[in-house]
Amino acid sequence: MAVSRTSDPASLFAAARTGDRVALPRLLSLVERGGDGARAVAEIAYRSPQQAYTVGITGAPGAGKSTLTDQLINRARSRGLDGSDQVAVLAIDPSSPFSGGAILGDRVRMQNHALDEKVFIRSMATRGHLGGLAVAVPDAVRVLSAVGVPVVLLETVGVGQQEVAVAAATDTTIVVVNPGWGDAIQANKAGLLEIADLFVINKADRPGARETRRDLELMLDLTQLGDWRPPIVDTVASSGDGVDELWTVIGDHRAHLVANGDLVRFRRERLAREFHQILLARVEHQLDTLLAADRFAGVVADMSAGALDPYEAADRLLTGLLPDS
Amino acid sequence: MAVSRTSDPASLFAAARTGDRVALPRLLSLVERGGDGARAVAEIAYRSPQQAYTVGITGAPGAGKSTLTDQLINRARSRGLDGSDQVAVLAIDPSSPFSGGAILGDRVRMQNHALDEKVFIRSMATRGHLGGLAVAVPDAVRVLSAVGVPVVLLETVGVGQQEVAVAAATDTTIVVVNPGWGDAIQANKAGLLEIADLFVINKADRPGARETRRDLELMLDLTQLGDWRPPIVDTVASSGDGVDELWTVIGDHRAHLVANGDLVRFRRERLAREFHQILLARVEHQLDTLLAADRFAGVVADMSAGALDPYEAADRLLTGLLPDS
Repeated sequence: MAVSRTSDPASLFAAARTGDRVALPRLLSLVERGGDGARAVAEIAYRSPQQAYTVGITGAPGAGKSTLTDQLINRARSRGLDGSDQVAVLAIDPSSPFSGGAILGDRVRMQNHALDEKVFIRSMATRGHLGGLAVAVPDAVRVLSAVGVPVVLLETVGVGQQEVAVAAATDTTIVVVNPGWGDAIQANKAGLLEIADLFVINKADRPGARETRRDLELMLDLTQLGDWRPPIVDTVASSGDGVDELWTVIGDHRAHLVANGDLVRFRRERLAREFHQILLARVEHQLDTLLAADRFAGVVADMSAGALDPYEAADRLLTGLLPDS
Repeated sequence: MAVSRTSDPASLFAAARTGDRVALPRLLSLVERGGDGARAVAEIAYRSPQQAYTVGITGAPGAGKSTLTDQLINRARSRGLDGSDQVAVLAIDPSSPFSGGAILGDRVRMQNHALDEKVFIRSMATRGHLGGLAVAVPDAVRVLSAVGVPVVLLETVGVGQQEVAVAAATDTTIVVVNPGWGDAIQANKAGLLEIADLFVINKADRPGARETRRDLELMLDLTQLGDWRPPIVDTVASSGDGVDELWTVIGDHRAHLVANGDLVRFRRERLAREFHQILLARVEHQLDTLLAADRFAGVVADMSAGALDPYEAADRLLTGLLPDS
């Protein structure tokens, strides 16, 4: 059977490892769709050696993350972290919580690399995947890793809580801010300060870059840091200024993690959190089934009438369902 | 026993209904802290008539939501929706997903109203509350409603997914944008277009207000709308321009909801979603207990070694725990 026809995960993995350009997207589609296919893919991916180094890129919409990612692709191609010149990008477009609209416009730019067979770019949606982004993205990273991709860049569209969590679940997390009073403060508000392994002040040729750097330094001074103080790199992604330095600093951070054993430890901790998400998604799914039953409608009617509060209602529905572990 | 000493929910409710200024904050503190206290409060709140009309105010950081809320407090005082001149504000400051830092600076302004006993302002944190914002905020709104507050303004700090969901769970949801190319598009990206009952273009005296209005109109044209097309109101919150019109439009939306029965229907749907969140939080809590057990560490070690994938591990841990409903 031709690879282009198969949807058997083992065959797809074998093909993807030899560089087949059809097999890898198909594996990731299986992951996105969830269900038994995703599970069969995960079974193989998780039992393969994990070799990809992951770099998360997050920051407010408009900060220039896509342009920066575009530049980092070039660096990974010419100066790969491992001597390898391959790179993959996952662009995380979470569905809106309400109807699922996501605008892909600014990804189109990355199609610059569409003909480069050492560059793999994928915009991820996760509709249908039990556990959503928090589970689907790590699964996708595992797949890329299992087929031998050495560097995975993971770019978020915005700074929603889910996206931030996904960007943080990488080996090196880059937080991108822009010059201007308040940008550093907004980044802090969005929970970005605590996840940053390094900061980029992009569009650093604009007024206010020095003030933004000072704000960030001040916030770092006020924060409990471990033995790594996040460096701050100025870039102008549109021209490429500063991106060489950024790539060097990413390498420094990686060397630091390797040297003190944090790389192994942090990856194990991430795996534990991911497992928690998988368990939670599984239990939530069973709960949904439970709620679809007729008696749920009756309970809501009672609550609406003020005859029952939701805590007592929860007791009633869950009693006997879950043991006290 | 003096009210100032009691923490008995029934006494606190009785005192709060007579205007006691100590009892209401205490009830809300019980809600925030979660646990048995929150539950005892909810039991009373959910069995009391729900009369508060809720208005959600959301939008990107810096859009001017606090200033606008400040102005809406003035309108609610002078031209209450029900002839009543009382109003409460809940400012939603979600903890960061990572360490819980939240900057309260721009709330200080609302202390303008600190001496006005018809205005109740509360900045909500939800540490310790099982279910977080999604459960604690509706519980708090129920409390305000149960003690007779006729209008509750619910303002978010940012547009994180949780905050957006909380802002959307109100009778009238206001999405605040600013003039300038792209702001309407960012609002759409953040999932705000679908939750808006009305849009405010704040700082409308700045360049670009007309373009932003055009962008919003275009997006509305492209969206499946019900029988209410979200109006767009220009304001300059700092001077108060346009706020009277905004208050009128809020009243129009309310009249629309009342006239076609949507107010009752939407509230019932929200209650069902809230109940779902409570159930989920309860189950998640039991899951956490399960995972704290020793065998969880062994499972993670097996996964790290590539000897087990998390889906199979989930099977092992959950087997026998949950019936198939």
